[in-house]
Amino acid sequence: MALVDLSKQVALGIDIGGTNTKFGLVNHRGEILAKGSIKTDTHENVEDFIDELYQNIKPLIDEHCSDKQLDGIGVGAPNANYYRGTIEYAPNLKWKGVIPFAEMMTEKFGKPCKMTNDANAAALGEIMYGAARGMKDFIMITLGTGVGSGIVCGGKLIYGHDGFAGELGHTIVKPSGRKHWSTGSEGSLEAYASATGISITAKKMRAEFPDSMLNEYAEEDINAKTVHECALKGDPTAIEVFRYTGQKLGEALANFVMFSSPEAILLFGGVIKAGDFILKPTKLHMERNLLPIFRNKVRLVFSELDEADAAILGASALVWEM
Amino acid sequence: MALVDLSKQVALGIDIGGTNTKFGLVNHRGEILAKGSIKTDTHENVEDFIDELYQNIKPLIDEHCSDKQLDGIGVGAPNANYYRGTIEYAPNLKWKGVIPFAEMMTEKFGKPCKMTNDANAAALGEIMYGAARGMKDFIMITLGTGVGSGIVCGGKLIYGHDGFAGELGHTIVKPSGRKHWSTGSEGSLEAYASATGISITAKKMRAEFPDSMLNEYAEEDINAKTVHECALKGDPTAIEVFRYTGQKLGEALANFVMFSSPEAILLFGGVIKAGDFILKPTKLHMERNLLPIFRNKVRLVFSELDEADAAILGASALVWEM
Repeated sequence: MALVDLSKQVALGIDIGGTNTKFGLVNHRGEILAKGSIKTDTHENVEDFIDELYQNIKPLIDEHCSDKQLDGIGVGAPNANYYRGTIEYAPNLKWKGVIPFAEMMTEKFGKPCKMTNDANAAALGEIMYGAARGMKDFIMITLGTGVGSGIVCGGKLIYGHDGFAGELGHTIVKPSGRKHWSTGSEGSLEAYASATGISITAKKMRAEFPDSMLNEYAEEDINAKTVHECALKGDPTAIEVFRYTGQKLGEALANFVMFSSPEAILLFGGVIKAGDFILKPTKLHMERNLLPIFRNKVRLVFSELDEADAAILGASALVWEM
Repeated sequence: MALVDLSKQVALGIDIGGTNTKFGLVNHRGEILAKGSIKTDTHENVEDFIDELYQNIKPLIDEHCSDKQLDGIGVGAPNANYYRGTIEYAPNLKWKGVIPFAEMMTEKFGKPCKMTNDANAAALGEIMYGAARGMKDFIMITLGTGVGSGIVCGGKLIYGHDGFAGELGHTIVKPSGRKHWSTGSEGSLEAYASATGISITAKKMRAEFPDSMLNEYAEEDINAKTVHECALKGDPTAIEVFRYTGQKLGEALANFVMFSSPEAILLFGGVIKAGDFILKPTKLHMERNLLPIFRNKVRLVFSELDEADAAILGASALVWEM
């Protein structure tokens, strides 16, 4: 058996979002040797998208991998199926139906390709390079425009029988609660704990409290960031927005803990910038809803990965898993 | 390596309940060669309990295992810890604190002993001898006096970092809902979907509907069985009791599906005798709360194991897993 020189191995990590697609060449230490991005939504068909990806990435490979070995490609994408290497009926992408994306990438780049959804990729990134190093049982919750999740049990990501496990953002935290703007479900975690959910809560609450600083902003400027600014200035309504959000999140986390009993829950994404405003009520309501046997055991941890690079790192971690 | 004659192998399966403890010698085909039971709650200390177990089981071993090999002992018990072989702070047992039960059994019987909670054992029993043969991803829900669960992902039971994963009966399905008689939590699945929960619902509903047949019974005779009898006779209130229970159960199952994406959910226990009265609303509300990507994929299956023997079979399956 030939010895493998880890320092010579490189993975291509690609994160496909609804608007932008980011990519990077990553080594075993989680260093990004080169990176870039293209628009996702300008390509009506997926072949053209892959062509543009190739034209942008090939020069980076030539430049940075002459003395190294590109081992493979990892892709994080919405509705990606880990087992089949497909993107299936992704509501926020233009390519409809079932896209055999991994196969098409392998054909174009001549390298093996693995895929999973973006939150699963983020969880792998945390295992490989981040706060979950050495952990075997944890849950990753990404709190951004939406709420995603990656669940690791016994050191392995949970994919379920069909490759779609871990849609915790869509679990119902309040039956007959807030209607989701896209799925139509009522009372999902995402409807409350995403950045979108926070801005809905803030708009409702500022209408109830005319004295709130939140009323100094135009409707379109009400978002997690501006609510945070008001909370920092001591606005009770803004603080209540995060308290309410944290309550819903904490109640959901308690249910997740009683499912898989993780040692930690990792929180990631724009929403966590609110810090203790959201973390403290989240922890309170998580603990309050847990059976005693689970209490004061589960750490709530903020991700250590740089938000701008986490998606690329996570996708690249799929390659090392191969 | 010596060949193993499977037909000669026997496992001792023990199921410890709050009142009774059942045990049986089980072969690889799931046939119970001999069985018996003793009282659990007459023994203030666990040593006496194990002594009585041994006095009852030893003669069975001598009689049935003279030409066979007793491979080990599997125990299903409340609050059993799979990793540590302990029973920890079980609220419905007299033995307080952390009991090193597996170690004590091995000392007494001279055989290796593994433990898990009763619902996990039931899930193993279904894999080995029941409706889950060949399944790699499923969730077992036991609907009895309480609600228990065993979660299998990728062919393995989920134990979590501490051995206590899978307490789905205690997940909250209705925030600030019905107070649990024992844990004090508000709105747990067990508070609605257990036999105890059903009788609470029935007592509330019969008070609201004076015409209901349920009013012909004495307070202490209102239970899942009598409600079922009234439902069979067409009593709308009794039917509504199961519909409401099924709704709460279905909403909970939808959340579980979006967690681990199982191919099936196995239902087991006294409550399922209500058949379609509970199954149909359960399925309806499960499907209604699922993301489209999960709909019409998950089978709801009733257990195939005989209820009287399932606990022993499940516990014995721990031995074959060793």
